[in-house]
Amino acid sequence: MTTVQNAEVSGRRVAVRWQEGGAAEFPFLWLRDNCRCPQCRHPGNGQRLLDTLDIPDDIAPKAVAARGDAVEIGWSDGHDSRYAADWLKAHELSPQARARRQLHHRLWGNEIANDLPRADWNELERSPEAERAFLARYHEFGFGLVDNVPVRSGMVVEAGNRFGHVRVTNYGAYFDVKSIPNPNNLAYTSVGLGVHTDNPYRDPSPGIQLLHCLEADAPGGDSILVDGFKVAEDLRREDPAAFERLSRLPQHFHFWDKNADLEADQRVIHTDHEGHIRNVHFNNRSAAPIDLPLEEVEGWYAAYRRFARLLRRPEGELRFRLAPGQLLMFQNDRVLHGRDGFDPNQGRRHLQGCYIDQDGILSRWRVLEREGAKVPA
Amino acid sequence: MTTVQNAEVSGRRVAVRWQEGGAAEFPFLWLRDNCRCPQCRHPGNGQRLLDTLDIPDDIAPKAVAARGDAVEIGWSDGHDSRYAADWLKAHELSPQARARRQLHHRLWGNEIANDLPRADWNELERSPEAERAFLARYHEFGFGLVDNVPVRSGMVVEAGNRFGHVRVTNYGAYFDVKSIPNPNNLAYTSVGLGVHTDNPYRDPSPGIQLLHCLEADAPGGDSILVDGFKVAEDLRREDPAAFERLSRLPQHFHFWDKNADLEADQRVIHTDHEGHIRNVHFNNRSAAPIDLPLEEVEGWYAAYRRFARLLRRPEGELRFRLAPGQLLMFQNDRVLHGRDGFDPNQGRRHLQGCYIDQDGILSRWRVLEREGAKVPA
Repeated sequence: MTTVQNAEVSGRRVAVRWQEGGAAEFPFLWLRDNCRCPQCRHPGNGQRLLDTLDIPDDIAPKAVAARGDAVEIGWSDGHDSRYAADWLKAHELSPQARARRQLHHRLWGNEIANDLPRADWNELERSPEAERAFLARYHEFGFGLVDNVPVRSGMVVEAGNRFGHVRVTNYGAYFDVKSIPNPNNLAYTSVGLGVHTDNPYRDPSPGIQLLHCLEADAPGGDSILVDGFKVAEDLRREDPAAFERLSRLPQHFHFWDKNADLEADQRVIHTDHEGHIRNVHFNNRSAAPIDLPLEEVEGWYAAYRRFARLLRRPEGELRFRLAPGQLLMFQNDRVLHGRDGFDPNQGRRHLQGCYIDQDGILSRWRVLEREGAKVPA
Repeated sequence: MTTVQNAEVSGRRVAVRWQEGGAAEFPFLWLRDNCRCPQCRHPGNGQRLLDTLDIPDDIAPKAVAARGDAVEIGWSDGHDSRYAADWLKAHELSPQARARRQLHHRLWGNEIANDLPRADWNELERSPEAERAFLARYHEFGFGLVDNVPVRSGMVVEAGNRFGHVRVTNYGAYFDVKSIPNPNNLAYTSVGLGVHTDNPYRDPSPGIQLLHCLEADAPGGDSILVDGFKVAEDLRREDPAAFERLSRLPQHFHFWDKNADLEADQRVIHTDHEGHIRNVHFNNRSAAPIDLPLEEVEGWYAAYRRFARLLRRPEGELRFRLAPGQLLMFQNDRVLHGRDGFDPNQGRRHLQGCYIDQDGILSRWRVLEREGAKVPA
């Protein structure tokens, strides 16, 4: 529990000193806008009732008081606010506090081959704590493997709706990955596929992919995963100019068949305003002619080819063979996936896949963390 | 039909002069990478077979020939390519050619009140040409109104799956917008709602919203639409520094109830690398404490409040009253929507809503354009 030692006005901010050491500043407008009282936020659903625009431009405290477990402020607009010390501490705006709030990604290469984020389907069904622990690891690594998922057609949709909400596309609620004649997509052949992210030609592109193995006795067809965030960080270190280009200039993607015609622009590396990598898109098969100012084209190609080469480094490739009953779930805009070619004349290889989005699975994880994810007695 | 007058090497590019006047340049790597032959692209599904990485760094033409309706190139890697003149013309990289390929948005205020993008459901069902024309107008304005949609519960999902694919969320496949006791969301009360975009706390946030009116005899409850792209352009002109901040710094959003806990960062105005506005997010109700470097907070608030004031200009507000059987479809990340309060004691107001995404509806439009959208005889 945090304790307030002192709170006072400093310029257009309130400066707070903590008993435990350290201090923080909060701008007047930010404080008034985030008043926690039931007039400013609906007590039942937490939604805001106060409109930011209704706060006067010159809002300022008339009185500031440190109350140990809270700071109390009487405002120039006549409103009184009370901010719990713990809440203020959790929302500090210093670089250190802000960094602590970032979702932590563990970047990986094939050194994790013997310690994959992994769970058993029956255990997940039985234990909220097992699911919470699995989802925590999943979010850290960007993928997870689930064993003993019932081997039946359509099960991948059930799994998708367990973790989030299945996103239906022109491929349907799920798709069969197996070798067929005259496919509309090279995925539905037996050729090897270099590592890629799925559907960059779709806006929004799928956040998460699930692949459920139903049959796998054809020789070949091993799965390959590469951590796109790790390789993007390698690129940033080894060739900052290439990183800058790929995070600024979009690539164009296109897919069409009889019933669909999908086009979108995506940056290969997408960073936020502070340079954190948010997602990665990479797909040779559906790349369309890039549509950039003429003078940017050669630089973009050099950067792209540099990144593509880094993606092929063997130490970044996690290779394994999916067995029937295994389900692989991965963040499609972080972890690239591919496969070796296989021989469809000597056996079968049949996966079913579907897409879900970040919102549902993050929400499920947060709810489990929030509820303490108690194992039922 | 385009005709090639002349084609020759110029530095690391091929320079092409058109019979009709004008010229264009194409970089070697771009040309080799976009070879249209059946070895480089799968003739059936158009997917790339050539891997960009397999092209040598020093790729160059050994021979370039103008053939009237095409340019033929013999490459240093031994491959021969043929580029149709029409294809080259369509992919020119000059600023003018690139601007022509942008999707055209018509920015609007309430001057369009008597000329809304509008269609009749039965006409859409009967005529692909009517649907093509409606979708063209929909994409230009960012919204459209459909009359005579059958008044029955769940119909909004049928409409959503006609134009695209319904995105299921924690609210289900569709949601009822009516006044209920103890709602988890202020939308499910009778209070007025300022204009906003839906679900900015969701990643990805919904691209498109459909609202289908089932009952509307309560006094009040008029709908309000505002073109967020128009107002963002106003802001760029009137206060470029505010525009710059809102297009660089993200806002934080949060929604939670018993079963869900959704958080996301969104920039209020999202622009691409050339400054074109791509989407807008604005939602007072679900705004969480912003999480920015301390020194950015006051500047962000000033910019946000400036934008919020512009959104309230009466000349930007399109107001109308939805009648039973009308369906409003709008680009959720462009067009803000709101409603006046209504009196639930004097009548009913019941809408059903659902979300779809950009990919499906753009695809449907492109397929209709591609097929010529012939009206059946």
